[in-house]
Amino acid sequence: MSYTLKQIADLVGGQIIGNDQIVISGINSLVEAKEGEISFFSDRRYEKSLRSTKASALLVAGHTDLYAGSQVVVPRPALSHARVAGLFSFPGPAFSGISDKALIHKSSVIGKNTTVFPMVYIGEDAVIGDEVTLFPGVFVGDRVRIGHRTVLYPNVTILERCIIGNDVAIHAGTVIGSDGFGYVRDGSKNVKIPQIGIVQIDDDVEIGANNCVDRAALGTTWIKRGVKTDNLVQIAHNVVVGEDTVIVAQAAIAGSAHIGKEVVLGGQVAISDHVHIHDRAMVGSQSGVPKDVKSGEIVSGSPAMPHRLWLRTSGLLPRLPNFSERLRALEKKMESLENQIKSKTTE
Amino acid sequence: MSYTLKQIADLVGGQIIGNDQIVISGINSLVEAKEGEISFFSDRRYEKSLRSTKASALLVAGHTDLYAGSQVVVPRPALSHARVAGLFSFPGPAFSGISDKALIHKSSVIGKNTTVFPMVYIGEDAVIGDEVTLFPGVFVGDRVRIGHRTVLYPNVTILERCIIGNDVAIHAGTVIGSDGFGYVRDGSKNVKIPQIGIVQIDDDVEIGANNCVDRAALGTTWIKRGVKTDNLVQIAHNVVVGEDTVIVAQAAIAGSAHIGKEVVLGGQVAISDHVHIHDRAMVGSQSGVPKDVKSGEIVSGSPAMPHRLWLRTSGLLPRLPNFSERLRALEKKMESLENQIKSKTTE
Amino acid sequence: MSYTLKQIADLVGGQIIGNDQIVISGINSLVEAKEGEISFFSDRRYEKSLRSTKASALLVAGHTDLYAGSQVVVPRPALSHARVAGLFSFPGPAFSGISDKALIHKSSVIGKNTTVFPMVYIGEDAVIGDEVTLFPGVFVGDRVRIGHRTVLYPNVTILERCIIGNDVAIHAGTVIGSDGFGYVRDGSKNVKIPQIGIVQIDDDVEIGANNCVDRAALGTTWIKRGVKTDNLVQIAHNVVVGEDTVIVAQAAIAGSAHIGKEVVLGGQVAISDHVHIHDRAMVGSQSGVPKDVKSGEIVSGSPAMPHRLWLRTSGLLPRLPNFSERLRALEKKMESLENQIKSKTTE
Repeated sequence: MSYTLKQIADLVGGQIIGNDQIVISGINSLVEAKEGEISFFSDRRYEKSLRSTKASALLVAGHTDLYAGSQVVVPRPALSHARVAGLFSFPGPAFSGISDKALIHKSSVIGKNTTVFPMVYIGEDAVIGDEVTLFPGVFVGDRVRIGHRTVLYPNVTILERCIIGNDVAIHAGTVIGSDGFGYVRDGSKNVKIPQIGIVQIDDDVEIGANNCVDRAALGTTWIKRGVKTDNLVQIAHNVVVGEDTVIVAQAAIAGSAHIGKEVVLGGQVAISDHVHIHDRAMVGSQSGVPKDVKSGEIVSGSPAMPHRLWLRTSGLLPRLPNFSERLRALEKKMESLENQIKSKTTE
Repeated sequence: MSYTLKQIADLVGGQIIGNDQIVISGINSLVEAKEGEISFFSDRRYEKSLRSTKASALLVAGHTDLYAGSQVVVPRPALSHARVAGLFSFPGPAFSGISDKALIHKSSVIGKNTTVFPMVYIGEDAVIGDEVTLFPGVFVGDRVRIGHRTVLYPNVTILERCIIGNDVAIHAGTVIGSDGFGYVRDGSKNVKIPQIGIVQIDDDVEIGANNCVDRAALGTTWIKRGVKTDNLVQIAHNVVVGEDTVIVAQAAIAGSAHIGKEVVLGGQVAISDHVHIHDRAMVGSQSGVPKDVKSGEIVSGSPAMPHRLWLRTSGLLPRLPNFSERLRALEKKMESLENQIKSKTTE
Repeated sequence: MSYTLKQIADLVGGQIIGNDQIVISGINSLVEAKEGEISFFSDRRYEKSLRSTKASALLVAGHTDLYAGSQVVVPRPALSHARVAGLFSFPGPAFSGISDKALIHKSSVIGKNTTVFPMVYIGEDAVIGDEVTLFPGVFVGDRVRIGHRTVLYPNVTILERCIIGNDVAIHAGTVIGSDGFGYVRDGSKNVKIPQIGIVQIDDDVEIGANNCVDRAALGTTWIKRGVKTDNLVQIAHNVVVGEDTVIVAQAAIAGSAHIGKEVVLGGQVAISDHVHIHDRAMVGSQSGVPKDVKSGEIVSGSPAMPHRLWLRTSGLLPRLPNFSERLRALEKKMESLENQIKSKTTE
């Protein structure tokens, strides 16, 4: 695949400064770009790479003198980069159609132009939309519903009765609808609470690889429109995650926690059960959040505190040995002063 | 499925106050319950929901005036909830029998009324009990033994020679018997120590989704009766986990650690290698435990300390900037006082 | 399988003190060894077990009086243990050859003596070397290349165009080549940046179970020769991991971070994006590393600091309540002294 620079500029609504007939055959970082590739510049830290890049064209927010080649001026180079990268992404898999090596229960319904690879299992009364792709090793349980244009990567498991929306991507190895972790103690034994709810995943959600999203004990574990999760994320039963929220790798959300919309949870974060993280809040990586977080608040640390306070606090942590010494020194001086004053008083 | 309230009361040994002929068709939380459903009340925090619930009946520890409908008085509503939820859990999968699309080595032995889905692989000399369910994508290695009534969910991997007991559930994507992480350094290279032990999982264990339980270097990694693990848990080689212990999501237990019985490990906990956590100890979420923990002790923090001390310590962490200022202020005052006294002495 | 002690001593280049014709049928720990088995002693903590072991022979660095049986003196017993354990590891799987129940695109090329289990999927134009083993449930995407003698355990997913070297082992459930977590914010929405790079894994790498290694946004996520990762590890897009580096369970490396060679990352570590961990550095478990770490440096804590400082700091954490009280006491005394001096001055 290759495109003229004019075609690319038209796609992203950019203005060309330079030759608009250059042929572009790929996109790459400033450092790795070869001749014939386009690159992008949106972060001043990479100014040095601008001078040395071999890229044949550049997406840029305003014309720069540091680069001699053709430039496409766009309001947001990072956003344009995302669009142009789409041009050069590799073609879909070689396989298409519904494999006769897939196992599909006769009661299930499959839409138009849907691809079912070999070694997919689809259970009873499942309903699958149009233009869906199910890779090998995918398990679709009884009565599952999947919308249009959704992609389930290899070895994804969707357990019975869960509902997946349109334009959803679920990456390899992820499990949707596993039992929530619910037991009642009876003496020393743990009696299982049957987990009879479901998971509902709305449109435009992307779930990373090897995630676990547990079904509700009762009712619904609900991942709303536009949520994006990284790899190895844990979402427990009855959790609700609001629209356009972003969850970084290895974060864990405990049971019945409620995450608002446009929230960002950093990597390895732990949200305690029943906690409410309100809209547009941000939680720094490795934080532990035992209490509600207000709308727009930024917190960090374990237990979490306001992020600015955490920056100061964590900066002081390595000074604890110093504090300890200074405390001891003060106590000695205090004792000495007290003695001096006492002796004077008794003089 | 529906039941009269009397049938439900008989199941849980409860006493009905109200109409015992109401027909109950489901169970739900106070907030989500619809007419015809039963709910339960065991936590005072939900008193408000009691007044507004639409549930047609209530499991409760003692008659309450806040709810007008029929009540079933039971000693422990949460436990009764678990039993009643079992009545309304969805039926098993549509598939039953041994699929001719499964691949089963001819030397292996499979019990009565066992379900083997298509796309299951069972290796040489495996022995599988009665009423077992193996979902699609399950791999059962050579010489594995699996007891009665055990369920392996989709894409579970049980590697060679591991032993799984009766009434065990292993959720989707989990790996039992992967190699332990053992190397000997030889110069800059890491020479692998062949991991020739096994994993043994005893009766009534439930393992969450996408867990990893490594086989022993030599001998046995041993998960004892009644253990419950949440999702994404890591259990390293030669670990022993005692009866009825509960391990929350993303916890990790390093090599040769020994966890006692009825222990609770919180989410994202890390237990160091060779550490011994004694019976009925509890470890707070995100804690790091480098040393043994005594029987019944509750610890938190990284590194872990007694839980009460951690509560006080972590409560003081955000005050470090304040401490720093106060230290400096004291030092100034001290210097000033010392100067005053010195000047007086030399007056 | 059994060997004379002489055969074993010859294998490890050891010197026998005792009977070189003893027949050895296994290897085990000092505590678990039975008659006919060999054990090893390399850690003084286990001296007690030396006296009571039932092992018939011992690998040891120097003759010991605490053990009465035959001894094989070797420079490094742990290394010799690794070699001898190899003698007693169980035989490979019963299956061999290329199953007609595997699905292999006709355009792909498979080397000599390679084992492809049933229920393996191999896509278009894939190239797979000699003596490779692909277990059931393995997915090999279009245009993937795999070297010689590599083993992919059950339910491993290798997505399109990734490159795997020779003598690599990838344990069950691991995903190689999932999309990197890259979005550009456009208002409240997150626009996906197509991830069009690849993952390259070099020779002699071992990747644990249920890992995720994301493909690069552009270019290559690169795991170099001899790297070993434990289970549930997350490696984000465009990360580079240097030769012979060791990564313990549940560690996470964020995008574009660069890990040097012979580095050790402890369990549950988090490395921030774009951070550079230089050669032979070590990062303690549960640490969070927001900044570069110098060659050979040892760091711990979250945020990370020099390990020795962390030992002192973390040792003082539980004393914060004590510090708080002492600060208050000092302030009171200070006030009292100031008052005394003021009253004297005004006398």
